[in-house]
Amino acid sequence: MLTASPRPSPITPTVDFAAKGVQHGHLRLPYSRDDSAWGSVMIPICVIANGEGPTALLTGANHGDEYEGPAALFELARSLRPEQVQGRIILVPALNYPAFRAGTRTSPIDRGNLNRSFPGRPDGTVTEKIADFVTRHLVPLADLVLDFHSGGKTLDFLPYAAAHELADKAQEARCFAAVAAFSAPYSMRMLEIDAVGMLDTTVEDMGKVFVTTELGGAGTASATSIGIARRGATNLLRHAGILAGEPETAATRWLDMPSSDCFAFAADDGLIAFAVDLGAKLRKGDLVARVYPIGRTGQAPAEYRAAMDGVLAARHVPGLIKAGDCLSVLAVVTEA
Amino acid sequence: MLTASPRPSPITPTVDFAAKGVQHGHLRLPYSRDDSAWGSVMIPICVIANGEGPTALLTGANHGDEYEGPAALFELARSLRPEQVQGRIILVPALNYPAFRAGTRTSPIDRGNLNRSFPGRPDGTVTEKIADFVTRHLVPLADLVLDFHSGGKTLDFLPYAAAHELADKAQEARCFAAVAAFSAPYSMRMLEIDAVGMLDTTVEDMGKVFVTTELGGAGTASATSIGIARRGATNLLRHAGILAGEPETAATRWLDMPSSDCFAFAADDGLIAFAVDLGAKLRKGDLVARVYPIGRTGQAPAEYRAAMDGVLAARHVPGLIKAGDCLSVLAVVTEA
Amino acid sequence: MLTASPRPSPITPTVDFAAKGVQHGHLRLPYSRDDSAWGSVMIPICVIANGEGPTALLTGANHGDEYEGPAALFELARSLRPEQVQGRIILVPALNYPAFRAGTRTSPIDRGNLNRSFPGRPDGTVTEKIADFVTRHLVPLADLVLDFHSGGKTLDFLPYAAAHELADKAQEARCFAAVAAFSAPYSMRMLEIDAVGMLDTTVEDMGKVFVTTELGGAGTASATSIGIARRGATNLLRHAGILAGEPETAATRWLDMPSSDCFAFAADDGLIAFAVDLGAKLRKGDLVARVYPIGRTGQAPAEYRAAMDGVLAARHVPGLIKAGDCLSVLAVVTEA
Amino acid sequence: MLTASPRPSPITPTVDFAAKGVQHGHLRLPYSRDDSAWGSVMIPICVIANGEGPTALLTGANHGDEYEGPAALFELARSLRPEQVQGRIILVPALNYPAFRAGTRTSPIDRGNLNRSFPGRPDGTVTEKIADFVTRHLVPLADLVLDFHSGGKTLDFLPYAAAHELADKAQEARCFAAVAAFSAPYSMRMLEIDAVGMLDTTVEDMGKVFVTTELGGAGTASATSIGIARRGATNLLRHAGILAGEPETAATRWLDMPSSDCFAFAADDGLIAFAVDLGAKLRKGDLVARVYPIGRTGQAPAEYRAAMDGVLAARHVPGLIKAGDCLSVLAVVTEA
Amino acid sequence: MLTASPRPSPITPTVDFAAKGVQHGHLRLPYSRDDSAWGSVMIPICVIANGEGPTALLTGANHGDEYEGPAALFELARSLRPEQVQGRIILVPALNYPAFRAGTRTSPIDRGNLNRSFPGRPDGTVTEKIADFVTRHLVPLADLVLDFHSGGKTLDFLPYAAAHELADKAQEARCFAAVAAFSAPYSMRMLEIDAVGMLDTTVEDMGKVFVTTELGGAGTASATSIGIARRGATNLLRHAGILAGEPETAATRWLDMPSSDCFAFAADDGLIAFAVDLGAKLRKGDLVARVYPIGRTGQAPAEYRAAMDGVLAARHVPGLIKAGDCLSVLAVVTEA
Amino acid sequence: MLTASPRPSPITPTVDFAAKGVQHGHLRLPYSRDDSAWGSVMIPICVIANGEGPTALLTGANHGDEYEGPAALFELARSLRPEQVQGRIILVPALNYPAFRAGTRTSPIDRGNLNRSFPGRPDGTVTEKIADFVTRHLVPLADLVLDFHSGGKTLDFLPYAAAHELADKAQEARCFAAVAAFSAPYSMRMLEIDAVGMLDTTVEDMGKVFVTTELGGAGTASATSIGIARRGATNLLRHAGILAGEPETAATRWLDMPSSDCFAFAADDGLIAFAVDLGAKLRKGDLVARVYPIGRTGQAPAEYRAAMDGVLAARHVPGLIKAGDCLSVLAVVTEA
Repeated sequence: MLTASPRPSPITPTVDFAAKGVQHGHLRLPYSRDDSAWGSVMIPICVIANGEGPTALLTGANHGDEYEGPAALFELARSLRPEQVQGRIILVPALNYPAFRAGTRTSPIDRGNLNRSFPGRPDGTVTEKIADFVTRHLVPLADLVLDFHSGGKTLDFLPYAAAHELADKAQEARCFAAVAAFSAPYSMRMLEIDAVGMLDTTVEDMGKVFVTTELGGAGTASATSIGIARRGATNLLRHAGILAGEPETAATRWLDMPSSDCFAFAADDGLIAFAVDLGAKLRKGDLVARVYPIGRTGQAPAEYRAAMDGVLAARHVPGLIKAGDCLSVLAVVTEA
Repeated sequence: MLTASPRPSPITPTVDFAAKGVQHGHLRLPYSRDDSAWGSVMIPICVIANGEGPTALLTGANHGDEYEGPAALFELARSLRPEQVQGRIILVPALNYPAFRAGTRTSPIDRGNLNRSFPGRPDGTVTEKIADFVTRHLVPLADLVLDFHSGGKTLDFLPYAAAHELADKAQEARCFAAVAAFSAPYSMRMLEIDAVGMLDTTVEDMGKVFVTTELGGAGTASATSIGIARRGATNLLRHAGILAGEPETAATRWLDMPSSDCFAFAADDGLIAFAVDLGAKLRKGDLVARVYPIGRTGQAPAEYRAAMDGVLAARHVPGLIKAGDCLSVLAVVTEA
Repeated sequence: MLTASPRPSPITPTVDFAAKGVQHGHLRLPYSRDDSAWGSVMIPICVIANGEGPTALLTGANHGDEYEGPAALFELARSLRPEQVQGRIILVPALNYPAFRAGTRTSPIDRGNLNRSFPGRPDGTVTEKIADFVTRHLVPLADLVLDFHSGGKTLDFLPYAAAHELADKAQEARCFAAVAAFSAPYSMRMLEIDAVGMLDTTVEDMGKVFVTTELGGAGTASATSIGIARRGATNLLRHAGILAGEPETAATRWLDMPSSDCFAFAADDGLIAFAVDLGAKLRKGDLVARVYPIGRTGQAPAEYRAAMDGVLAARHVPGLIKAGDCLSVLAVVTEA
Repeated sequence: MLTASPRPSPITPTVDFAAKGVQHGHLRLPYSRDDSAWGSVMIPICVIANGEGPTALLTGANHGDEYEGPAALFELARSLRPEQVQGRIILVPALNYPAFRAGTRTSPIDRGNLNRSFPGRPDGTVTEKIADFVTRHLVPLADLVLDFHSGGKTLDFLPYAAAHELADKAQEARCFAAVAAFSAPYSMRMLEIDAVGMLDTTVEDMGKVFVTTELGGAGTASATSIGIARRGATNLLRHAGILAGEPETAATRWLDMPSSDCFAFAADDGLIAFAVDLGAKLRKGDLVARVYPIGRTGQAPAEYRAAMDGVLAARHVPGLIKAGDCLSVLAVVTEA
Repeated sequence: MLTASPRPSPITPTVDFAAKGVQHGHLRLPYSRDDSAWGSVMIPICVIANGEGPTALLTGANHGDEYEGPAALFELARSLRPEQVQGRIILVPALNYPAFRAGTRTSPIDRGNLNRSFPGRPDGTVTEKIADFVTRHLVPLADLVLDFHSGGKTLDFLPYAAAHELADKAQEARCFAAVAAFSAPYSMRMLEIDAVGMLDTTVEDMGKVFVTTELGGAGTASATSIGIARRGATNLLRHAGILAGEPETAATRWLDMPSSDCFAFAADDGLIAFAVDLGAKLRKGDLVARVYPIGRTGQAPAEYRAAMDGVLAARHVPGLIKAGDCLSVLAVVTEA
Repeated sequence: MLTASPRPSPITPTVDFAAKGVQHGHLRLPYSRDDSAWGSVMIPICVIANGEGPTALLTGANHGDEYEGPAALFELARSLRPEQVQGRIILVPALNYPAFRAGTRTSPIDRGNLNRSFPGRPDGTVTEKIADFVTRHLVPLADLVLDFHSGGKTLDFLPYAAAHELADKAQEARCFAAVAAFSAPYSMRMLEIDAVGMLDTTVEDMGKVFVTTELGGAGTASATSIGIARRGATNLLRHAGILAGEPETAATRWLDMPSSDCFAFAADDGLIAFAVDLGAKLRKGDLVARVYPIGRTGQAPAEYRAAMDGVLAARHVPGLIKAGDCLSVLAVVTEA
């Protein structure tokens, strides 16, 4: 198996990655099903190329319920003109397109979590086929990959761009330079404990510059968070020399998640009442939230307190919380 | 039929509304179904009574995905002591309890929208039976009713308390005095065009003081919005003389929705990208949001512009919007 | 409206109720739906008539997950010969046929609980149309109606036949004579508090003899409980003179449910562990069951104790119980 | 792959298996999904340790709709005191916790049948992750494993404990000694034809003592069957020397299933009417059940007759049976 | 209630029925639901008016899975120019728009069959609100109504236009003149036995000219059947003088359904194998179709034979048929 | 793994493939699930054997919504007498039986597309277990395999039989001779680009004669298409010498699909209006269909035109089409 040449991807792009100019097309992925024997998933893609220069791959909706990436990338796709570009920009505003259409984190077709499905399989599920095409046909074209995330329908984050600590320190430096160029209100230095299945690892393992983000959440996007996404993407393309001009930088606060004490999980079901909002500074032992049993009045809520000093960087969104849900994430501010 | 005495409510309360002290119990509503032939819906209720004085009825989760009310009322129920009370407080933190458990606006049992089901029917759906019990057994006990709302999972609002213009101007004045006592950041004067089926109308028609709210949304509650709800409820109980002390008032801005131009509805499906956030001041013609078609890149988004001067008082939450969804609500600030 | 003649039933029987001999046919109820624009519900019916004599209507699966009635009546329908009959027997082994096919208490079409839908409506739901046909076209043909019930999937009962206390004492006496002839291991004297919507009331209001049963439950039938049903039906037909011979009587214990203390409802969700089984004799205060919270080990279970002296006449079946479910029913033995 | 060290389990226990005393905690299994991006499955676990001695692992709800095990183990977990223990007891009352909460045989998350998923995979489905943790982290701690089963919602069994014929006759003898100590009304000697994927095989292959049971079914538990489970578990812990005292033994009847003639499967859909109940003694050719076609009256039922002499050891529960369903199991009594 | 003026329709049209020229807009029907608290159903409508003349109302997708009407009307709406019109044309290509979007006969919102919901209710279900608006706001504007039907996903028809026998013979004559002008391959004279709830009756009771059709089915439309629909609509508009020119008439065969013998219903479930196709001439007793039991091979199929002489005018579509489904419709050719 | 002997199939046939005469039985496939712990899938099978001669395997409903094969094979199974046979005929009228019962292309159990699941796995999904049994236990018995297909619910085809171009030209010639003997109105020479997972390839790789068909579609079968299927199957059995006599041949038109230009896919969602019907001759550039946006009237439809000269050999069925669906297939007529 290992030495056999892999099966070709079943995906057919309707754009020519080698052509110049602006192309709006689809990645067509055959998907036979009860309501369409010879149907396909049609993932929108835009390629803008001009002159010589590096290639940037910008992706949104890796998780289908995260909206800053799609909002920034659909806008870039319709407004960028080839003459503004030196090199090539590949935009896939809604990478897990079935999930994006459904407004869900995972694919309604196979419940696949795209960002746990890399490097993918050409003969796997629909989600794995998308991952495989990205791994074998899109990432190799790119020098730089920006993958937009936010908290989706069930989490909300302080807005940050991020890169990972890498074994190759030169690559790591290029990644953090790109994060700095993105210039979100917060920037994160991440040490993933389990990076299996992520696009992040796939791109980094090929030696590319990789930037990811968390820019809000709650299953929506605000004018503010969309602005951060648009400005960040443009900044990154300027930083890479694909767009002309300098990044519009602004102050960013650097964050770190030093240990598993950052994460708090609910131990019981109930109604969650936060005592503090995102960005609040907490001391170890401060009250973060109460969780009320909902079947009766008069019962004492469970209290969740900070396990360390930090700022509230992420929180659970739905008003009801279930045992095992991530309740909050604290982060340490490492630089002003 | 019209002259026949109505059927009794099938709901059995496990609390005694005439008793003093604190009682935590349920409204038991028989509900026969496939997974429980002789099952019931158990709606939590708390009654706190002491001495002589008026009765306040405070309700949350009239719509099941609105959380400020439940968060404030479960806390009041567990923390108020009878000796603090002069009169009686009836707390129903999750009025449409099946919807609240499911985290949905309407009841998963019958898809009933409780606040369009009043005055209800004793032999109707589960939702109509709840409405009927409230109408015939809870509201008549009360001098003052506070019904908490916010935007739910699909809308987000500036935080305000509100009352309606009423034919009985003395009653109207008592209602607006209560709104002022609640002391939310914003206060609203409402002229409902179609008030059929609402708890509001049911209460007002009995000559009671009625206050409602919109305190946020997006299917969650923040520390800030829960604080507004708790403070408002306490203020109202002080205003009524049931709790001792004066309301902790703060500045409020009075809003008005003078015409149907306040409301904008999406004409097409797509990805919504707001250009402004809640509270923004807009002039007629200003861009409110763009809606991008999602099937392809490169297409022009539909642009939605303000139809009048005003502040953005409410907005659609989910990242995708469907034709016919309310996109935004503008309001006019009538007082500083 | 009130004086207008009602709409005719949409149901067409394929049997001739006036004919002699054995007929196996259907009640055809037109039901237009997405998967059959001009479809119908086909309720099996059998009519066996011979000579002169009274008419008995025997019905099963009024609730679709109760099986002693169908098992007895499908067997009677295939084995009875006209020459055994003096009069007429109408057998409808699966009255709420859509529910019976689905194995559910209520109809999968409209979630209708047939035994709460009487007298029915010719222009209502499918379930209401069945009720209407029974009320207007079957019951009027009958002198005697036997409607089989048991506990369904969620309750289990001691096996008993029952009749109601009636205002017309002569009719009541005829009903209890029929119960005695049925000769189940237990017999029940019932005083319904809310009999609205039941076939029982519909039949009794027409002055007919009416017998009902509870013969077990748990969504199944045993050889023993099917034997009780078959013997009881045959006994009743002998008692009525439609079949020749005397009822095969056996000892029966008479039960009574004197007050609402008979019924216990769960106040919390959990795993139910009964301390006693059906038929056990209990003294007030005896332990009936424990309900364990299931989210954690080490928590104290809620204990449910007998509120009166009695035998355990019915119990909740599923291993998990939900707040509001009927946990147990006690009955008083009135005669040995 | 084969030589690579396997991926670590994603499950984090919140108990310390090396600590003394009583601990109530969870196995936290991260499970990202649409309604909780960073959610987890929380499987309750209890560890009771004291002094030196062997370790027993007791598990319930391997299939989620089997209740004697959970009822016995939640009770043991809350009532056992460390000072009663010499060694260690690990209690997992609801091993396939998602299935247990749903009241279903298989997991609602992935439809996984846990007892066909062993030895499991750390990167597989949620069910496979549970199996993997049990295989690699719980069984190795144990000297003795007792896994409770009964018939679930669709089968009902005579109550028995069982062990398998094993190649290692010394191990087999230890297992049957444990079965005898359990002392259920019936005891079974099993020769599994296809034991692939079962916890049984996984435990036995590690050389441990393994006991399983079938203790009833129909999706419930009775006071009687819970009593058998509690007494059996206590007996086994005494037999192992972990609890003090001798097992309370009682007479047991030994059963055997010598051939595939033991099993009967329905060939057609219909209403099942058993002619005999569990425990009945049958001669080859005796009637076991009739299956009636339900679409019409008057049709001959299919008759199912005993293919050998034996007692009725298990039967189908739901009133309707489908072609291919197991209708009955006969067993041979080998000892009085 | 009876004398009270009815509630106003909640539907807001975005077109002005009194304006000249072409307008493309919507009927906006507020529909609050879990995924859009303030959502609406948006039914496309087109009004084309010019000069003086009669008004024609043309509707499609009264049942959501019938496509000739929508195909003809979307085309008319985009291609007709006002200067071609003398009078007014109101086009609603997809009247039960929620059903049309879902590709189902009935509405996915409330399972409403629109053509059994007339005259509708302003405070009823979504489907009833559509019916009410048509009854009170669209039909009164019209002189002529053409409502397109075909067999939907589960039936297939010979293509015909039809009108009803009416008490007002002058009106009836106008209706049949319109049917003749439509000039479908077949034309039908219908005597509805139960016309309750139909648009047909609603329109006819107002004294208008009403034409309906059945033009094929199987959940699709062919080039041929769309051609019949387009030509028929144009012919009708010419016949009414709204479009210039004479109808393009062609030969039509007149059909009649004289008795209930026309309709055959399946008595059993199975695989249907027709022996003849649509349009075939049959003599009483000729084989129409066989229905094979599918659970086993070797069983005799049920045979369905013609109950009268006639042509096969309609048939069941899906390969599997259920007991109670309409299997076939025969019609008598009354004129060459 | 590769050298290990594979696990045995879990399927048990109730027929003896070595016996003479007619046998009607099942392939019993154990399938444990929530509603039947020890349930099975029961696939009907018929074996007819007599004397010496070749074996033909005839299969229908490989896709569950294709009906000509089942209609022909259920009829053959009940009507063929052993004395007509010289050799052996194995009939499996509904190969993917769960899909066939559900009326869906894929299995409702695992959504498996059987014809993409070959050669299957004995320890895989239910669909893969069926494929494995066919591969290892049915095909090896056969000299000739005929697998019936048509367009299912979402496609409609001109009726043709087909074989593939094969590397072994002698085998290929035998296959095309069999296609000619089948004698459908059209015959197709196929060059599969991706034949992975198909029964076709599995059979051909074993050197057998393989014939497949497309005989219509739209989720139904007509008298005409069933006639083609029956006549074709009989012709093939005569051609193989298993039935006596000569095939009843008729003129057939040979088709070819020379390039991917044959296939057209929809780029947008909408209402499809074909301009031509199946069998129409088209020149490159001719209009095939229009797709209308359905959210508004007045918008230009997308036009789909022929990319080459050819006949319309297949088309999309449902009235609505989705982006990515196969809209049409053109074929070239290579012989008169």
